[in-house]
Parts: sequence; C-alpha cells; structure tokens
Amino acid sequence: MQRIEQHASFDGSQEVWTHDSATLGCAMKLGVYLPPQAQQGPCPVLYWLSGLTCTEQNFITKAGAQQFAAEHGIVVIAPDTSPRGEDVADDEAYDLGQGAGFYLNATREPWAKHYRMYDYVTRELPALVAEHFPVTDARSIFGHSMGGHGALVIALKNPGTFRSVSAFSPIVAPTRVPWGEKAFSVYLGDDREAWKAWDTCELVAQASEKLPLLIDQGEADPFLAEQLRPQWLEEACARADHPCDVRMRPGHDHSYYFIASYMSEHFAHHAAALKR
Amino acid sequence: MQRIEQHASFDGSQEVWTHDSATLGCAMKLGVYLPPQAQQGPCPVLYWLSGLTCTEQNFITKAGAQQFAAEHGIVVIAPDTSPRGEDVADDEAYDLGQGAGFYLNATREPWAKHYRMYDYVTRELPALVAEHFPVTDARSIFGHSMGGHGALVIALKNPGTFRSVSAFSPIVAPTRVPWGEKAFSVYLGDDREAWKAWDTCELVAQASEKLPLLIDQGEADPFLAEQLRPQWLEEACARADHPCDVRMRPGHDHSYYFIASYMSEHFAHHAAALKR
Repeated sequence: MQRIEQHASFDGSQEVWTHDSATLGCAMKLGVYLPPQAQQGPCPVLYWLSGLTCTEQNFITKAGAQQFAAEHGIVVIAPDTSPRGEDVADDEAYDLGQGAGFYLNATREPWAKHYRMYDYVTRELPALVAEHFPVTDARSIFGHSMGGHGALVIALKNPGTFRSVSAFSPIVAPTRVPWGEKAFSVYLGDDREAWKAWDTCELVAQASEKLPLLIDQGEADPFLAEQLRPQWLEEACARADHPCDVRMRPGHDHSYYFIASYMSEHFAHHAAALKR
Repeated sequence: MQRIEQHASFDGSQEVWTHDSATLGCAMKLGVYLPPQAQQGPCPVLYWLSGLTCTEQNFITKAGAQQFAAEHGIVVIAPDTSPRGEDVADDEAYDLGQGAGFYLNATREPWAKHYRMYDYVTRELPALVAEHFPVTDARSIFGHSMGGHGALVIALKNPGTFRSVSAFSPIVAPTRVPWGEKAFSVYLGDDREAWKAWDTCELVAQASEKLPLLIDQGEADPFLAEQLRPQWLEEACARADHPCDVRMRPGHDHSYYFIASYMSEHFAHHAAALKR
C-alpha cells in the first residue's frame, strides 16, 4: 500500500492509496477519508461504491462527503469500479469492461481472470483497510447507480456484516434491464439462473437478515424508467416483508449534484447504525 | 443567453448558461446557482472567480457551495477564467492564454482583442445577470488563487460596488511573483508602472473604501512561498491601515479540498454583509 495523494479536508485527511490487488491481478487505487477523530482512535467504516465510468476520484471530489464524515467520525473508503490496466480485458462501450465491473465475480473468459470486484470489495479490501487504517469492526456500505446495485447486493449476500446500507439511484434488477443484461451476459454467460445471485430484487426474496434498504431516487433521472425501476424493488420488498424506503426526489437527475444534496441524510442514517 | 445544463441541487438549481460576449468577442459559459429562495423573489449575488486552468465547471462541481448558497439564499455566479475559442489567442503553458485571463484588460496584441476579463466581470456580466436572473443590487465577490487576485483587485478598483470580498490562496502581488510577472509582461507589456493597476498590494495602498479583506491560506500550499506570499498583503494593509484577516490553515494545500473545508465560513462572511 502506497499513498499517492493527501489533502487536508475538514480537519481530517482525504487520501488516495494504491496497491497490487491479488484478487484482481492488477494495481488498484482507492480513496480513503480519515476524519479528525481517527487521530484519537479507531473509527467505524463506510464503504462507497461508484457507478459506471467512475474511478476512485468521482466520489471524493464531487460528493461533499468529507464534511459529514468529519462530523460523525467515520472513515470512508471509495474503491475504483473495476480492475484496470493494459493486461485487463476491456471494451469500447462505457457500460462494459474497465469502469463497469458491476461488483460481481465474472465466470466467462476473458473476464474471469480479473473481474472479481465482489471478492475484492468483500474480502481483500476490508482486510487491507483493517491492516492500514484505524478502524473498528463496525461497517456500512452505500453507492450510486451500478455502485448502488453493488452496495445492496453485497449487503444482502453478507448478512451480519454491515450495520446499514443505502443507495442513490441503484440498478435494483440488473437481470431485467439493458445495462445489467448486457454486462451479465458478457461476464456470466447465457444462464439467466446464474444471474440471479447478483440481483437485488432476487436476493431480497430470500434474505435471512431484514436489513432496511434506504434509497434516494431522482424523478428527473434519465435512466429511471429503462434502467433503474425502483418500483420493482418496492414490490419485491413488499412480497418478502423486507423493510425498504424509496424516496423519490422531484427534479433531481442522476448526477453528483443529486448525490451531494442528500449526502447528509445518508450519513445520518449510517452514523446512527454505526454508533449503536 | 442559453441554458445548457440544469441540475436540481439542495432544493435549488445549478445551471450552466452560454452567451456571446460582446466584451470578449467569443462565446462564454457561466455557472449559475439559483437557491430555493429565488423562486419567491430576488436574492443577493455572490460572484466566484476561479484560478489558473479552470473553467466554469471546477467550482460548481467541487466546492460544495450549493449547500451554503441554499442555506443563506444567495445566487452564485461562476464565470469562466478567460475568453475561449479557436479565434482567441492562446499559449501552450497552463499559466498563459486560455484558462489564464488574470481578470485584467490586456493592452498588447494579440491579447488585447479578446482578453478583457476585467470589463467582462465588472460590466457585461452583472448586466447579464440582472437581466436574466432574480437578483437584488446586493453583490459580493470571492475567488481562488488567480481568481482570488481577481476578486480582490475588482473589489478594490470598484469602491461601493461590493458588500464584501474574500479569497482562498490569492495571488496578492502579481507584479512581484513569477505567475504575475509572466502574464503581465505578455498581456500588458514591459511598463511595470502599468502593472500596478492590477496588483492587490498596490491597490490597497490607495483604497478610498476600507472594505475588509478576508483570506484563507493553506500552510502546505506548494505555491505559498513563491507565488502567493500573503504576508506581503498583511504588510501593505498594515501600512495603509486597511482591515485584513489572513487565516493560515495548517496542513491545507491549494486544492478544492481546502476550499470546500472553509466554504461555509466564507458564505457566513458574505451572507452577513449581503443581508445588512
């Protein structure tokens, strides 16, 4: 682990670190925000997963999270969205390959070798964070769009691991919308049954832990009707008696302007759970 | 004036507009934040001037200003930093030409034709804003680095026009530091006496209005010792009995992480003056 950026931010420190990932077989970068409280002792951790086309930079430069992380004393970890590098399979499309890891473990070649973002985020990354930063065992997770999908899937597949979960504009049913169908057919192959292990609406139906799902969704989001469809998650949660709060936000689009507008509320949600 | 971006943001609207500037002889873009209060009636205006290499985008995506503009009910105008376009003189260096207008009126060719950012910001822009947006006559100004220089110079050269002024890491003595010497010799020629009309330390010495200068400066700013030298402004203000508060911030660098960390304090400063 090597620190490649360091900026004082709201009495804490916004950093970027790089390391060679054994899981992904490539060098990876991650954003790490250390709140001022981390100078006194270990703090809980909140993971952020970004959306299509993003790197570790988008969230740390645009979301305005540091203010609230400093207020609540939370370490924030923002990894990249996919494996990277010349040796890593890629595609010219913005919604496939590098920048579009979808937080799953690919099973088809040439993707299976490097595209293991699920294992990276759930195993290698927490171990790395625990080794290098002053953190407690308390952890939560949130994300945006493809990263909202990642946060929800990862929380649902790992009961007891996360204190809370939330998402902005998540892809809740990737097995039934174009972004997910395209990525899953390429990364996982044609067996649609196998896709269900990576679909929030499917996972909710069988969840053993009733972790409440908090979701903010812009009503003016251009991807709402075709790719996001939060009403499908509300229906799946209603059927499974799984607590779910989808808050539709008039006028808001898919951008970081939307994310920043409700960042304080998501931090309040996670801080309440992390400090229990 | 044509709107080319619109994003809901903190119950208000972050927009980008474009227009053909008569002053600059080219198309220009500007960021416009309309707080929720602007839906009820006219609001005061705060101008932001960005630094070297920036466009209208840097401030609106990275500074976290919308939260505080919405809280205080202030319209925020963030113009580009220079004229733009293929017909506009340019230079390969990051600190000259497009992206480096220095908020002055150039007198040497080929710059004099388009590089009139001082006239643009002080005349054309306020008229445009008054015509198209719900604003009162109350206005203040702030900026960063080259834009901090711009804000201070513009406030000092226009007594009675601005209710308050502030700056992050401003270039306070461009006639005596490499960035300013390079730009002024190119835009204004070799007559160093003519340069003094665009130098905050020189202007303070003859200011008829004692508008207090509020400045935040990071102690870990890599440009501090060579380009910024805020102590020169403190000395000039002490000699002229001009109120000046330079706040040195340990650990902070020259980035938007620094700016965002103290944005709330600058808004409090300007809001107090704008609502008098």
